[in-house]
Amino acid sequence: MSLTHLDDKGAARMVDVGAKTATAREAIAEGVITMSAKALTAIAAGAVAKGDVLAVARVAGIMAAKQTAALIPLCHPLPLSGVTLDLALETGQIRVTASVRTTHQTGVEMEALTAVSVALLTVYDMAKALDRTMTIGGVRLLAKSGGRSGDFRAETPA
Amino acid sequence: MSLTHLDDKGAARMVDVGAKTATAREAIAEGVITMSAKALTAIAAGAVAKGDVLAVARVAGIMAAKQTAALIPLCHPLPLSGVTLDLALETGQIRVTASVRTTHQTGVEMEALTAVSVALLTVYDMAKALDRTMTIGGVRLLAKSGGRSGDFRAETPA
Amino acid sequence: MSLTHLDDKGAARMVDVGAKTATAREAIAEGVITMSAKALTAIAAGAVAKGDVLAVARVAGIMAAKQTAALIPLCHPLPLSGVTLDLALETGQIRVTASVRTTHQTGVEMEALTAVSVALLTVYDMAKALDRTMTIGGVRLLAKSGGRSGDFRAETPA
Amino acid sequence: MSLTHLDDKGAARMVDVGAKTATAREAIAEGVITMSAKALTAIAAGAVAKGDVLAVARVAGIMAAKQTAALIPLCHPLPLSGVTLDLALETGQIRVTASVRTTHQTGVEMEALTAVSVALLTVYDMAKALDRTMTIGGVRLLAKSGGRSGDFRAETPA
Amino acid sequence: MSLTHLDDKGAARMVDVGAKTATAREAIAEGVITMSAKALTAIAAGAVAKGDVLAVARVAGIMAAKQTAALIPLCHPLPLSGVTLDLALETGQIRVTASVRTTHQTGVEMEALTAVSVALLTVYDMAKALDRTMTIGGVRLLAKSGGRSGDFRAETPA
Amino acid sequence: MSLTHLDDKGAARMVDVGAKTATAREAIAEGVITMSAKALTAIAAGAVAKGDVLAVARVAGIMAAKQTAALIPLCHPLPLSGVTLDLALETGQIRVTASVRTTHQTGVEMEALTAVSVALLTVYDMAKALDRTMTIGGVRLLAKSGGRSGDFRAETPA
Repeated sequence: MSLTHLDDKGAARMVDVGAKTATAREAIAEGVITMSAKALTAIAAGAVAKGDVLAVARVAGIMAAKQTAALIPLCHPLPLSGVTLDLALETGQIRVTASVRTTHQTGVEMEALTAVSVALLTVYDMAKALDRTMTIGGVRLLAKSGGRSGDFRAETPA
Repeated sequence: MSLTHLDDKGAARMVDVGAKTATAREAIAEGVITMSAKALTAIAAGAVAKGDVLAVARVAGIMAAKQTAALIPLCHPLPLSGVTLDLALETGQIRVTASVRTTHQTGVEMEALTAVSVALLTVYDMAKALDRTMTIGGVRLLAKSGGRSGDFRAETPA
Repeated sequence: MSLTHLDDKGAARMVDVGAKTATAREAIAEGVITMSAKALTAIAAGAVAKGDVLAVARVAGIMAAKQTAALIPLCHPLPLSGVTLDLALETGQIRVTASVRTTHQTGVEMEALTAVSVALLTVYDMAKALDRTMTIGGVRLLAKSGGRSGDFRAETPA
Repeated sequence: MSLTHLDDKGAARMVDVGAKTATAREAIAEGVITMSAKALTAIAAGAVAKGDVLAVARVAGIMAAKQTAALIPLCHPLPLSGVTLDLALETGQIRVTASVRTTHQTGVEMEALTAVSVALLTVYDMAKALDRTMTIGGVRLLAKSGGRSGDFRAETPA
Repeated sequence: MSLTHLDDKGAARMVDVGAKTATAREAIAEGVITMSAKALTAIAAGAVAKGDVLAVARVAGIMAAKQTAALIPLCHPLPLSGVTLDLALETGQIRVTASVRTTHQTGVEMEALTAVSVALLTVYDMAKALDRTMTIGGVRLLAKSGGRSGDFRAETPA
Repeated sequence: MSLTHLDDKGAARMVDVGAKTATAREAIAEGVITMSAKALTAIAAGAVAKGDVLAVARVAGIMAAKQTAALIPLCHPLPLSGVTLDLALETGQIRVTASVRTTHQTGVEMEALTAVSVALLTVYDMAKALDRTMTIGGVRLLAKSGGRSGDFRAETPA
């Protein structure tokens, strides 16, 4: 069992996907940021009035999805046909879920995971003056479809 | 208690730090990616021979630290004086620790957290053919020093 | 009548264009920068000798067209098949016209408008020591073709 | 009278500002996008509920301010200490005003003008399905302070 | 005989390739950096232990291939299907060879040459404290295939 | 003798320059691209009329200098105070010379070398339809001044 991004000498490469078929693909990822009640209340209060923390994080996540290939060294650049981000206030945490779609030769897991990560980092940035102990976790793939390797759905749902 | 990145009408802004003093600052952040024994073994095997997964992730994290202000909407652009990333193979997971330094008017927590997040995403990308259930978690600030608001050290050490 | 870039809860999203057909598309946009006779004469003098203000602005506009999806949050990334920029010295102003082509699922209005805007900003930058009252205006779509929604041609020609 | 960005042979250059003193500087710029009542009403309706068009445009403008030196060829890269954007719904148009601050050797007019331009382009992108005749205009410098060349204030106020 | 990137008035443009057929294309480029025995020995010593100089340069070259259209003004943005970089320690120099593949309407010579150049610059950066007289040379196209203009192979092989 | 960009375990890092003094620094680099008489004549013909190949390459080099830290993984981001590029038509080749200045804690060799490399690649791109055997070479540091390690001047002048 070997890592596809390394050649037989162990050197990094961007795997050639030229022979793969372009198909419609989707990936859904999620993650959470846990924080103090104080920070969560301040964000929720803003959300009621103007929603800006969640709106800024959503924009940051969508824009980050488009920068994935520039950030992740061996990731293929590809055109995205759609990106949505959902941010939900839960008890003690904010949950971010991203859905990314393309019609291309490779999947978009990394785009969905990058969107989630950067949205969560943006929430961190905007709330860090209120709570320095916030933690980002549970960043994982929920589902993917459309690739040659078959569909995937996480056993523990969101 | 309010969010500093929103003005009194709730609109997002990049807070003016022009009146702050430029001081030497450091931030240390960490995070982990949990994975199957199979994936971890493959990475460790590569690490013994050539170390490329860890080397690629380290480079990705350092480069991401420099892109922080381009990714996080309200983050100040600033010159970084030093960045180091440490990747450690542990039981069932890989731990990434980033240390970032600057002499500037704002801290570098976001740069350290962004470096950690992108390094972890890079590990995910390179191992995702082996394990689709990897999860990124525990992304948090370990320590910061040098700012006006006083030093910080996480209560639970790394 | 609602905004396509917002979902039914008002949250921003990158609209899914995966079901659209890829067709040959073109968009033409224009804009002007008005300036003092002194600034215009200096640029024209340079244009006669070496043409560098116009040449630099043209390059900046072409390069900006390629950065459109990185600048405009909900804009789809797409491959461009061709970009041309024309800069014309007129009485009291410089006019920039951009034509952008692609074969893709979405149009390229934003690429043409971004190319025009950045070319005009570049002229501003290079002439600002001579005139601080320059104004950019008339930035609009002149024509588009190739999309599902039908061709468009501005009523008032350039 | 000559253009500072061209040398005596007319070749483009990034002017050396190394001998200038770093001082606190601010620039304020504005611009408008005119649109149909239908488009303006849709944006206003969204603004009441969630404010996302204005929020997305504000984020895009702030992020663009940080990309100014990457877009405008001869513009100096510099750290920004603060950026604010104001978007106002007016009769038949939306007005964007940007204020940018730094402590550096050059001014930040281009950063303020770029923030305004990209925020206006973002509004265009989000409303273009409703109105293809929107026009961006009146993009100009309102005021600047802090540089060697003296303060500036536009004669016609905003 | 004229330059395709200039129109009949000599103005720069991104040539329209919309009418070209998308075919599988590959380009291979190479280049070398000559250096003192001392610098080469230090890199080789590192290469035996951890390989980081070569690993970092390889990652930098792969990532640069993806930034080609952002760096070279008239270059078309395109999706890359695969990128590999080989770095070889030779007598008195390090040789970098890059292979880039796509299925698109234009070739990928510039992507291969950019990957080589940035990988060589990265070696320079990491070794410059040991040798200030290093020189980058021999950066050229070795072979290309798949385009309308026929295959190409350099007469003097690598 | 060891490589400063690797720690004692051989891992890559961005060296901490926080303790260095910010001083005025300059670096000058050069490089050439050799080409057929046919290609050189076509460029020279354009240069007489409009100068666009040289103008486009000059702009590309200046803009690339500002992207150096984004391209070279362990390079420090820093504000540049000035950049000039000179392109000279010589017998059988074009010579690019770049001069970069800053007042900072590290030197700007990499910025000057990157500007030269990207300007040369841009010439390659614009002339490649006329000559596929062009070669970039002689990319080296001509002089640097202002750092702690003393001034440097290449023994063989340009």
